[in-house]
Amino acid sequence: MADQFWESTPEGVDEALTYADAAFPVFGNLPGKTRAAFLRAIGRQILDLGDVLIQVTSRETGLPLGRIEGERARTVDQLYQFADLIEKGSWVEATIDTPIPDRKPNPRPSLCRMLVPLGPVAVFGASNFPLAFSVAGGDTASALAGGNPVIVKAHPGHPGCSVLVGEAIVRAAQETGMPEGVFSLLLDEGTSVGKDLVAHPKVQAVGFTGSYKAGMALCQVAAERKVPIPVFAEMGSINPVILLPGALEKRAGQLATQAASSVTLGVGQFCTNPGLILAIHSPALESFIEAFGKVISETAYGTMLSPRIAGAYHKSVQEVLDQTGVKLITRSSKDNLNELNQGQPTVARVNAEDFMGSPKAHQEVFGPFSLLVCCKDFQDLNQVVDSLAGQLTFTLHCEPAEMNGHPDLLQKLREKAGRIIFNGMPTGVEVSPAMHHGGPYPASTDSRFTSVGIHAIKRFVKPICFQNWEDALLPPELQASNPLQIVRRVNGIHTKNPIA
Amino acid sequence: MADQFWESTPEGVDEALTYADAAFPVFGNLPGKTRAAFLRAIGRQILDLGDVLIQVTSRETGLPLGRIEGERARTVDQLYQFADLIEKGSWVEATIDTPIPDRKPNPRPSLCRMLVPLGPVAVFGASNFPLAFSVAGGDTASALAGGNPVIVKAHPGHPGCSVLVGEAIVRAAQETGMPEGVFSLLLDEGTSVGKDLVAHPKVQAVGFTGSYKAGMALCQVAAERKVPIPVFAEMGSINPVILLPGALEKRAGQLATQAASSVTLGVGQFCTNPGLILAIHSPALESFIEAFGKVISETAYGTMLSPRIAGAYHKSVQEVLDQTGVKLITRSSKDNLNELNQGQPTVARVNAEDFMGSPKAHQEVFGPFSLLVCCKDFQDLNQVVDSLAGQLTFTLHCEPAEMNGHPDLLQKLREKAGRIIFNGMPTGVEVSPAMHHGGPYPASTDSRFTSVGIHAIKRFVKPICFQNWEDALLPPELQASNPLQIVRRVNGIHTKNPIA
Repeated sequence: MADQFWESTPEGVDEALTYADAAFPVFGNLPGKTRAAFLRAIGRQILDLGDVLIQVTSRETGLPLGRIEGERARTVDQLYQFADLIEKGSWVEATIDTPIPDRKPNPRPSLCRMLVPLGPVAVFGASNFPLAFSVAGGDTASALAGGNPVIVKAHPGHPGCSVLVGEAIVRAAQETGMPEGVFSLLLDEGTSVGKDLVAHPKVQAVGFTGSYKAGMALCQVAAERKVPIPVFAEMGSINPVILLPGALEKRAGQLATQAASSVTLGVGQFCTNPGLILAIHSPALESFIEAFGKVISETAYGTMLSPRIAGAYHKSVQEVLDQTGVKLITRSSKDNLNELNQGQPTVARVNAEDFMGSPKAHQEVFGPFSLLVCCKDFQDLNQVVDSLAGQLTFTLHCEPAEMNGHPDLLQKLREKAGRIIFNGMPTGVEVSPAMHHGGPYPASTDSRFTSVGIHAIKRFVKPICFQNWEDALLPPELQASNPLQIVRRVNGIHTKNPIA
Repeated sequence: MADQFWESTPEGVDEALTYADAAFPVFGNLPGKTRAAFLRAIGRQILDLGDVLIQVTSRETGLPLGRIEGERARTVDQLYQFADLIEKGSWVEATIDTPIPDRKPNPRPSLCRMLVPLGPVAVFGASNFPLAFSVAGGDTASALAGGNPVIVKAHPGHPGCSVLVGEAIVRAAQETGMPEGVFSLLLDEGTSVGKDLVAHPKVQAVGFTGSYKAGMALCQVAAERKVPIPVFAEMGSINPVILLPGALEKRAGQLATQAASSVTLGVGQFCTNPGLILAIHSPALESFIEAFGKVISETAYGTMLSPRIAGAYHKSVQEVLDQTGVKLITRSSKDNLNELNQGQPTVARVNAEDFMGSPKAHQEVFGPFSLLVCCKDFQDLNQVVDSLAGQLTFTLHCEPAEMNGHPDLLQKLREKAGRIIFNGMPTGVEVSPAMHHGGPYPASTDSRFTSVGIHAIKRFVKPICFQNWEDALLPPELQASNPLQIVRRVNGIHTKNPIA
C-alpha cells in the first residue's frame, strides 16, 4: 500500500477516490468492533513513531516539543474515544417500530432506522494543529469511525509530519485488514488539489479547519457541483470575553493575568484565542488595562507556524491599529532576536462606537493580539454584542449576583456562540461528550454540528429507514435478537432487550 | 392578534419577523410542557373547526372528503407526537461532563451541552398536503416544538384552508398564553413574498416541501444571504420499484394490482409515488405488464390539485412519451367527463439503454404516471440503478432466496435512498420515530434530516455548550438536581439521577 500517497495531480485525486469508493461498501459495513480496532491501531502506530514525529513536527511548525507531545496525546485519545463509541455501538440511534397488522384504517408496517455512513470524506489538515486536526485528527477519526473512507489533503505547513502520520495510518490499516483505499493522503503546496478533491463526484462530505477565506472557497466548489455536498468548515472567530463591572471590581489583576495568558497561549494561534475583550468604563477597568498591558509587554515574542502566518499576523495587527479610534495599549518588548517567524504580543483599545463602525476591527487576527472595547454603559455593551457575528465561544466574567440582572445578555450569547464560558478563558477545548466546538456562521458553516468530541461523528452519517424488511437481511443493529446488545428505541422505549 | 395575517408585501414580511424575533427569547425558553400545551391546543382548535375545514379544503384542492379527514387526523397526530416528545423533555440530548479539578496536566472544567432552538423558522406550505404539510403541518409542528417562532408562507392553492388553520393556531396561542409573534401567516399568489421571507436576516432556517425548481430557488436565496441559512427542502423523487424475477414469477398479477394502485393513489400526487418500475425481460414480466396495463386502463381519471398541476402533468407525460424508445403501455379509458383538472392514469415502457440516454425520462412526473424500464439482464438493471439520482425511497420486490444473491444491490439502495421498502409500495409514509422521509440530493437538500417523524425537530435546533457555569444560571435541563427528571448522559452514563 505504499502507493497510497498519491501525487498531487488531478489523476492522483481521481485514483484516490476510485480506491476509496471501492473500499466504501466493505469498510462501511464492517462491525463497529473491527473499525474500532483500526482506530486503536492508528493510535498505537502514532505512538510508535516516537520522538521522530515530535522532532519533525516541531521543526516544521515552530511549536515547542512539550506542546506537540500534549497534542499527540490528545490525538491518540480522540481516536480511542471514537473507538470506544463504535465498539459499544449504540451511537447508530437504532429505532424500531414493530408492525401493527390489524391497525385501522391501515396496518402499520415494520419500520426500523439507523445511522449509516455517507461515503468517501475529504479532510483538510489544519496548520495550527499538525496532529489533532490534521492527517489523523478529529475529522479523520470521526469520519473513519462512522464508516467512511478518508482522503486527507495535508496542510503544506507540515508535510513531514503528515507523511509520518499517513504512513502510520496505512500500517494500521494493513495490520487490521482494512480494505485498500480506506485512507489516502494527498500533498500539494497550492489549492488546486484541494479544489479537485472537493469537486470530485465520489466525495460525499468535507471536513475543514482553517481560515474563513479558504473555508468559503471550498464551500463554493461544493455548492457548484452537480450534486452539492456538505462542507463542515470550522473557520475561527474572535471569541469575545465580557468583563462585567463586578468581576473587574473584585479581581482586575487576576483577570489581567488570565486574559494575557490566554491571548498569548501558543502564540495566539488557537481558533479560540480571545481576540476581543468587552468592558464598561470604570476605574477598575483602567486598573485591568494597566495590569493587562504590563503582562503583555513582559510576554516574550513567540515562534509562529510559518513566515507567511507571521507576516499576515503583523499586517493584520497594523490594519486594526490603523482603524479610526483604535489605540495601542502595549506591545511586548521581549524580542527573541535570533528566532524566525516571531509573533509580537500586542493589545489595543477602542471605544464602542468606533469598534461598531469598523468591519476590519471585527475580523479575526490570527496570533497573540486582542482588542479591548471600552463601552460607556450596559446599553453600549449590548449594542456591541448585537453587532458581532457568530462565534465559536463567548466568555462572561461576572459575579453571580450581577448575572441575574442581565438575562438578555445570556440569551444573546446562546444565540451568538457554540460554547459559553463562565469566569474562565476560551482557550483549551476539552475533548469530551459535552463539548461543542462549532458555532453560528461565520464561525462554522453549520451550527448544528461539532468538530470536537464524539458528536462529531454525526457530520458524516445519515439515517436510513428499512420498511418491511426480512430480519436476516437487516444490519445486525436492527435485527430482532439484538445480536450486538446495543441500546435501541423500540416502540418508544430505550432498551437492550430483543424483540419478541 | 388578528393582525397576524400580514399583507403580502415586503413590509408585511418585515413586520412578521420583527414580532417573531421579539417572541423568540420568550418562546424558546418556555418549559417543554408549556410549549406542548400550545401544540395540543393547535390540534384541538383544528378539530374544532369541524366540517368547514374539510369542505373548504376539498373545494380548494379537489381532494375527496375522506382523504382530507384522514389527513386532518394525521396532522393532529403529528402535533400530539411532538407535544409528547417535548413534554418528556429528554430529546434535548442533555450531556454533562462533571469537573475534574485535580486532573493533570490540566483540570477538566465543568461542561454541559443541550439542544436549543435556532430562532424564527420560515415554513412553506405544500400543495399536495393542505393540512399535514402546510400551515400546521410537520414543518410547523417540529419547528414550534423545538422552540422556534414560525412564519408560514401559505401555498396559494388552498388559501381558505390556510387561513382557517392559521386562525386556529392564533387561537391556540392566545389560549395557552404564547408570546405575540410566535406564529404568522403570509399569503401571496406569486413567489416574491417567499423570496423576501428567506432573504430576511432574522429568519434562521427554512422548511419546504415541493418541486425541485422551487426548492432550489429558495436554496439560492438562502446561500446568497450575508449569513447563509439552511433550507430543508424535500423536493420529491421518482421512487423506483425493482421487481426481481422470482417475485414476478410467483406473483405477477398481484404485483400489477399493487403497483397500479400505488401509482394512481391520490391521483399520483404523492412525493412517494412510484414513478419508475425496473425489471428484467421475461415471460412473467410480460404477464405483469399486461395485468398492470389492464388495471391502469380501468382506473378512472382523478381530480388533480389545480388546473396548473393537471396541465403540467399532461405536458410532462407527453414529454416522456416523446423520448426515444419510450412506448405507451396504456392510458385510462375512464374519463370523468364533467369534472375539472382531470389526471389521466398513464403507464409507459422503455428499454434500459434508451432510459439511461434520456435525462427527461429520469425526471419526476407529478401525477398518476409510471415508466417501466425493461432491462436485458442483471447487469443492465445494475447500470440503470447506478444512473439514478438520490431518491426518497427505493422499493425491492423479491423472494428472500434471490435477495441473498444481490448484496451489492442492497448496498446501492442504501446509498441512493432514505427509505428502502421490501415487498411493499412506497406510498404511505408512516408518522413514527423509525420513519425517515428524506434522501440524498436531489430528493432533499440534506440527507441527514427527515421531515416526517419526531427526528424532524433536529432540523431546527443546535447544540450549545455551557462551560464552568453556575448551576442556578443553567437551563433546568442541565441543573445538577435534574428538576425535569429527563434522561441525561452524565460522564458517559445515561441516567435520570441527579448529580451528587
